[in-house]
Amino acid sequence: MVNDELILLDSWPSMFGMRLRIALAEKEIKYEYKEEDLRNKSPLLLQMNPIHKKIPVLIHNGKPICESIIGVEYIEEVWKDKAPLLPSDPYDRAQARFWADYIDKKFYDSGRKLWTTKGEEQEAAKKDFIECLKVLEGALGEKPFFGGDNFGFVDIALIGFYSWFHSYETYGNISTEAECPKFVAWAKRCMQRDSVAKSLPDQHKVLEFVKTLRHKFGIE
Amino acid sequence: MVNDELILLDSWPSMFGMRLRIALAEKEIKYEYKEEDLRNKSPLLLQMNPIHKKIPVLIHNGKPICESIIGVEYIEEVWKDKAPLLPSDPYDRAQARFWADYIDKKFYDSGRKLWTTKGEEQEAAKKDFIECLKVLEGALGEKPFFGGDNFGFVDIALIGFYSWFHSYETYGNISTEAECPKFVAWAKRCMQRDSVAKSLPDQHKVLEFVKTLRHKFGIE
Repeated sequence: MVNDELILLDSWPSMFGMRLRIALAEKEIKYEYKEEDLRNKSPLLLQMNPIHKKIPVLIHNGKPICESIIGVEYIEEVWKDKAPLLPSDPYDRAQARFWADYIDKKFYDSGRKLWTTKGEEQEAAKKDFIECLKVLEGALGEKPFFGGDNFGFVDIALIGFYSWFHSYETYGNISTEAECPKFVAWAKRCMQRDSVAKSLPDQHKVLEFVKTLRHKFGIE
Repeated sequence: MVNDELILLDSWPSMFGMRLRIALAEKEIKYEYKEEDLRNKSPLLLQMNPIHKKIPVLIHNGKPICESIIGVEYIEEVWKDKAPLLPSDPYDRAQARFWADYIDKKFYDSGRKLWTTKGEEQEAAKKDFIECLKVLEGALGEKPFFGGDNFGFVDIALIGFYSWFHSYETYGNISTEAECPKFVAWAKRCMQRDSVAKSLPDQHKVLEFVKTLRHKFGIE
């Protein structure tokens, strides 16, 4: 695949985009990164993802792959010989997919509500958020990574959120370290990997971004 | 895998449960079907799916696989030699996963709203529902099945909904045949398969079920 053309349509604060950046870095695949302005989406994005009109989109030799988890599976299947991201056992694969799905269905939403809501709704979100983190800590157990000894699929699905934790903690008034020390230890372990460190934006830059969003949404 | 113990915790009207029933039938795998009373969930269900507490759950030699699409992928991977459900090309696989995801994220919800809402909200749901069906018809194109010449992953993800169409049409006051004839032709084609015909309940039985739910929810 020497002459592959690979383009990633992305937006720097997107934890979903980060999944593809990390997976591509783990596989040591070169690609062209194109930053999208989500208030003024490019014709290429609208053409490549006409259904959802969302980033990230991976474009491989002109053909789009949409939805980040599906993109990570695609990368795993096309570049299967280098740095396997999913386990080989079908049951372990199903479990990895289950936790990635859990992160999308439950965790994302509770995190978002921490900085978009107030009062009772925010209190409920705080409870959900900590509960989700504890469930995830339970799934991690005593392993260094969700993938076991190796960084893998669920680690990739989850670690991008860590760049938002400073914002979650600031606006949600929570301390992840105090509530979920094992989660934080896992996140710091992941951050030691080059693939992760270079794919995640600075937490303070994300906080500035969230601040502008809160102004735009009329929350503050 | 002669001595495999395979149990499906399910509920007969569930289009998600139907996916597993069809996939297992396609692969000609024997299993024990256990009907769950969703108002009084069994200790086994709560033990096997403590996170979501939902059916369907496939239990293979004591180990649970939750979330229906993940279950279909599991069945495909464990019994890979018989009746392949996913294409072998990574791009085609990503497309199949994309459409299954679309059905879960967009189509399910618009269908549900057809019989749970009234007035403006229902009108919006009707528009969404028909729009989703047309998008799906576009993805089907001129092929006999979403999987091409062969019945496959997306067909399995979608066809269970067809048993709910009589209810959607009755309460949503829509005619799928008039609006989306290609969809209906596809559904009838699927219904000719034994795996589908024996996995889907009668549309009138589903309508009776929906009627009792509407009473319970105070809609009529």
